[in-house]
Amino acid sequence: MKKGASEYLKKRKATINKELSRLVVTLKGHLKTVYTAMNYALKGGKRIRPILCLACAEAAGGRVSDAIKAACAIELIHSYSLIHDDLPCMDNDDYRRGRLTCHKKFGIANAVLTGDALLTYAFNILCFATKSASVNMQLVEVVSQAAGIRGMIGGQVADIATNKKDQAMQEYINIQKTGALIAASCKMGAISAKASKKDIGLLLKFGEHIGMIFQVVDDIIDNEGLSLIMGQRDAFEYAKGLTVKAKATIAGFGKKAEPLYIIADFLLRRTH
Amino acid sequence: MKKGASEYLKKRKATINKELSRLVVTLKGHLKTVYTAMNYALKGGKRIRPILCLACAEAAGGRVSDAIKAACAIELIHSYSLIHDDLPCMDNDDYRRGRLTCHKKFGIANAVLTGDALLTYAFNILCFATKSASVNMQLVEVVSQAAGIRGMIGGQVADIATNKKDQAMQEYINIQKTGALIAASCKMGAISAKASKKDIGLLLKFGEHIGMIFQVVDDIIDNEGLSLIMGQRDAFEYAKGLTVKAKATIAGFGKKAEPLYIIADFLLRRTH
Repeated sequence: MKKGASEYLKKRKATINKELSRLVVTLKGHLKTVYTAMNYALKGGKRIRPILCLACAEAAGGRVSDAIKAACAIELIHSYSLIHDDLPCMDNDDYRRGRLTCHKKFGIANAVLTGDALLTYAFNILCFATKSASVNMQLVEVVSQAAGIRGMIGGQVADIATNKKDQAMQEYINIQKTGALIAASCKMGAISAKASKKDIGLLLKFGEHIGMIFQVVDDIIDNEGLSLIMGQRDAFEYAKGLTVKAKATIAGFGKKAEPLYIIADFLLRRTH
Repeated sequence: MKKGASEYLKKRKATINKELSRLVVTLKGHLKTVYTAMNYALKGGKRIRPILCLACAEAAGGRVSDAIKAACAIELIHSYSLIHDDLPCMDNDDYRRGRLTCHKKFGIANAVLTGDALLTYAFNILCFATKSASVNMQLVEVVSQAAGIRGMIGGQVADIATNKKDQAMQEYINIQKTGALIAASCKMGAISAKASKKDIGLLLKFGEHIGMIFQVVDDIIDNEGLSLIMGQRDAFEYAKGLTVKAKATIAGFGKKAEPLYIIADFLLRRTH
């Protein structure tokens, strides 16, 4: 990764982490367990979704401050989904991001409630995302659709429901699970910046390509899914092609969209 | 219960059930399990919260149609909370409303996801609650606060966290668990009808009293909490006093608030 790219991602990550801390600290009260668990669950992520949200707002001519609350709401929803997916009744994972999963650390009941609290708080934050009620409402609409039964939850349901999955089915499920929220992150950045309908559409399209790249590269890293169907090399060529397509989608945005090029390349080249 | 009261509640319940079916059927797709589980979980409730929401909208001079989506969103959130509270890791209940609990019927993973889907869909519905983005935004704000860590979830967390609870503590927890959403139901009805700040405040106050009545009568029926501390008779006198207070709060609304009197009396006199 080029030095400028690494610095850009680091800077954005710091901005997001600062705002996340500020937002969660307002919940500090007598419910110490869930408050602690919320903070614990929010630690250590790459912040890809909120960084995409901020970069799409910038590409659309907005400022980071226009989209920072939307970005944080997305990260809260992403964190909630990880906590619930890790539960013993789902994927039964003991570790996440190199540390004990939320239910291993705080117990299953607290993990369920911490996930619920993060999801609920995300919607509360979106009420104050921008000064425009209409914009905030659109943000709630987009993310409640992407995180719901037709998006992220739908993917998880299909995942646990289907015992005998062929690789194409698993691929479809993974894309629904991760792709919906990644595409929504881009759309929400554009909406936060009050972009035109056309620009919102283009940045959503970009987000859909990015969601695919994210998943294909995951497959390559874990040697699963598409990487098994096509082989590592062809899967990487496919991801490269998606990156070209993603960049072409936002060519019209010019210099303002440079951070999005950085993110696309970072996601293509990442090795973990 | 007087015949007029019974008919009023029956009529409102039918309206709510019809709209709930209409809203949930739009999710019908290939995810049969969660769709079926959502419908299953929504069956059989008394619909107290949505009826309160509609009656508060009417008291504030609005129509049932102004508040019907807010009312349904509240019932979805109530249903989600029951599903998660019933889970083996929480209260571990096998039966709810005389039927198997969601996790007993559909498995734990599906129950967690069905709860998540109901909560997420509730926020989606609120985006289309009224024609005013500002009103819809206020609805999201009120319910995300009431259902969150400072309200309903907070109550549940305190409930599972506190092993040795004295009765006063249990009482406080129960009121936080049920009271927050009941009060929010009233406030949301008023907001949906574009009531004045003063009227919203009065209907919220009414809702807070109703939440207490609901809980005290629950205690009397189950011979728990306040009913054990004060004795059955004194607890009922206390609930009667709360009903007088609740009615006094909305005296200024005149004839339009009559349904609220009906609901208050119904909640005081109910025996199950």
